[in-house]
Amino acid sequence: MIEYLENGTITSVKGIKAAGVFCGLKKQKKDLALIFSDYLATVGGTFTLNKVKAAPLLISQDIIAKDQKVKAILINSGNANACTGEQGFENAIKTQIFTAEHFSISKDEVLISSTGVIGQQLNVEKIKEGIKSIQLSSELSAGHDAAEAILTTDTFPKSFACKVKLSKGEIRIGGICKGSGMIMPNMATMLAFIATDAEMPKPLVQKLIAEAVNKSFNRISVDGDTSTNDMVVLMANGASSISIIEGDQDYQLFKAALIDLCKKMAMAIVKDGEGATKFISVKVASAKSEIDADSAAKAIVNSPLVKTALYGADANWGRILSAVGNSGINFCPEKVMIKIGDLHLLNPGYDSNFDESIAKEILLKKNVDITVELNEGDASTTWWTCDFSEQYVKINANYRT
Amino acid sequence: MIEYLENGTITSVKGIKAAGVFCGLKKQKKDLALIFSDYLATVGGTFTLNKVKAAPLLISQDIIAKDQKVKAILINSGNANACTGEQGFENAIKTQIFTAEHFSISKDEVLISSTGVIGQQLNVEKIKEGIKSIQLSSELSAGHDAAEAILTTDTFPKSFACKVKLSKGEIRIGGICKGSGMIMPNMATMLAFIATDAEMPKPLVQKLIAEAVNKSFNRISVDGDTSTNDMVVLMANGASSISIIEGDQDYQLFKAALIDLCKKMAMAIVKDGEGATKFISVKVASAKSEIDADSAAKAIVNSPLVKTALYGADANWGRILSAVGNSGINFCPEKVMIKIGDLHLLNPGYDSNFDESIAKEILLKKNVDITVELNEGDASTTWWTCDFSEQYVKINANYRT
Repeated sequence: MIEYLENGTITSVKGIKAAGVFCGLKKQKKDLALIFSDYLATVGGTFTLNKVKAAPLLISQDIIAKDQKVKAILINSGNANACTGEQGFENAIKTQIFTAEHFSISKDEVLISSTGVIGQQLNVEKIKEGIKSIQLSSELSAGHDAAEAILTTDTFPKSFACKVKLSKGEIRIGGICKGSGMIMPNMATMLAFIATDAEMPKPLVQKLIAEAVNKSFNRISVDGDTSTNDMVVLMANGASSISIIEGDQDYQLFKAALIDLCKKMAMAIVKDGEGATKFISVKVASAKSEIDADSAAKAIVNSPLVKTALYGADANWGRILSAVGNSGINFCPEKVMIKIGDLHLLNPGYDSNFDESIAKEILLKKNVDITVELNEGDASTTWWTCDFSEQYVKINANYRT
Repeated sequence: MIEYLENGTITSVKGIKAAGVFCGLKKQKKDLALIFSDYLATVGGTFTLNKVKAAPLLISQDIIAKDQKVKAILINSGNANACTGEQGFENAIKTQIFTAEHFSISKDEVLISSTGVIGQQLNVEKIKEGIKSIQLSSELSAGHDAAEAILTTDTFPKSFACKVKLSKGEIRIGGICKGSGMIMPNMATMLAFIATDAEMPKPLVQKLIAEAVNKSFNRISVDGDTSTNDMVVLMANGASSISIIEGDQDYQLFKAALIDLCKKMAMAIVKDGEGATKFISVKVASAKSEIDADSAAKAIVNSPLVKTALYGADANWGRILSAVGNSGINFCPEKVMIKIGDLHLLNPGYDSNFDESIAKEILLKKNVDITVELNEGDASTTWWTCDFSEQYVKINANYRT
């Protein structure tokens, strides 16, 4: 029912134009993106839980809280405009005003977002010139340009789009995102901008994006840190003239598609984790409750010891079990089963007897599935992470310089 | 009033003998230590909070809970005897019995402790032969041998001893410890065995060690993970015939000395953190409460982004502030001051204007002091950590192999 579009991106969605340009915040790579909806869109979003919040994030959060429809999202990379005080706010508002004036829309119809170095004032003039140079287009290439312009230490742009057949016709959902360092549950430095041409009221778009984020972006971790600038935004511009109404079958189909697209985006972010060499899927099953399952999975995906062992292709199940032991959940370690792929590393009763060479073979692959069965109940979850390599340290030791 | 003893170790304490031998659990390094008190000692201890607890740890915890006096602590490295089920328990008890029989004491007078790989059965025969080969001695070299035999990935043994003049005479406190990976507040894989020749009742020894651990070992972090085997034990054997009574001035002196010695040990563990190139002291001042100060400091010392920036000598104060923002405490980011050494990186009002070359110079030193003033209240704390280098990843990627 969900069909992914080849080369799909945010401009795969009806009524969505985009652009990605170089304005000089970075040394030479594209650093300014604009997403533009021909129609006023209802919008929902989720934002970082870090107490330190960047100016553009607070401004966008405020617009979304006010139930304001929007037409544009301006995103710059290279500078986070975080910890920049009053001037940071003024600068953020200036970029919002430039965008509004240049495209003849209202200031409050412009969401803004920044990512990059913390604590440096934004060069507003460069952004102003950048905005002037923007040529909006509904071509796929324009969506991909935007996806490129929002990157920081990411190694590849991330775009997805799908179409979904509903009872009244077809709608589309498309998005771009960036991640890399500081990725961790509850909205770490990651940005995702998603649009759909379905039509839906504000409360519904908010509810849907919150639920989708919870099942996707909130289940990934690169290094356990969370940032000052993270946000996920969903715009619904109604260009398809197909309405989504809470509760019916079309609603279920739309929700499933949105969650699936968000998972695809979240997984792409993990795959591009700083220094990552492997994609790790961690399923925690037969937990007492969903909260327990999530706590255990979160502890595993955040453990540097587990992640370095995976990097070294070392079947060190003791570290996995120890991570669950640190998660704060109540469980009986003796009842735990741990497997990688189909190979049982540990069976209940601390029964561990496996072929190390087969384990090594499984762990040397690019994709590793870890399953932890707690044998305590019926709840389960799956989280995603990457391994932890020397490259992560190298990238982060010299980020500003 | 506290005088550290040159070359001091656990055998600096009156009535304490020790030994460290090779019994074959490791490939060639010493792997079996015994600490022996000529007199029955009252004993207190703190243990890992990990739900997964090693067999020897549970056995020792039980002895300490029972208010049993002890004479010996047997420690092996190379094998953690954790996640080893019934057989692991039986093996642990066997090593306890061997020790008791060989030294003609009661089984319950023997504490046991293990550190090393998780999930493999202990080779009890090797330990038995090792025990037979032990020559106890009160020489300093014997204490240092024991300190060596408890190491895993540590790069140097850690021994300290001090003498304290009390009103009724002089007492001594000495200890050995090990750390390295998985070090994190609330007793991560670290072991510390401390002895004093002062005399004190069981409730007091427990109270004192709990307080000392809270102000020392619980304020260090290498990688945010906690282990299945951690314990800190304090034995008071009364060989000095000087009693400590709660509340008087001698008590205060003793407590201060114990805390100081524990801090020295904790700092040594951090200095030997896996792959560490720098020792970082993090002071959080003017917090609303001690809990807030500790939460903020803990978030900073556990942030991989802060630790990699320190490794790269990058004055990235944004990551420090962002870590505090993730700590869960309530504070106003605009009021924060951050400095390294005496150099202010950030003043209240997001005022950041410093000489990068001076910052670099400070950060290139082996010891870096970070101060974060929240300007919210009167509470303060200091935690210790190390930087995060590629070497950490290398060490942990191939630990078992």
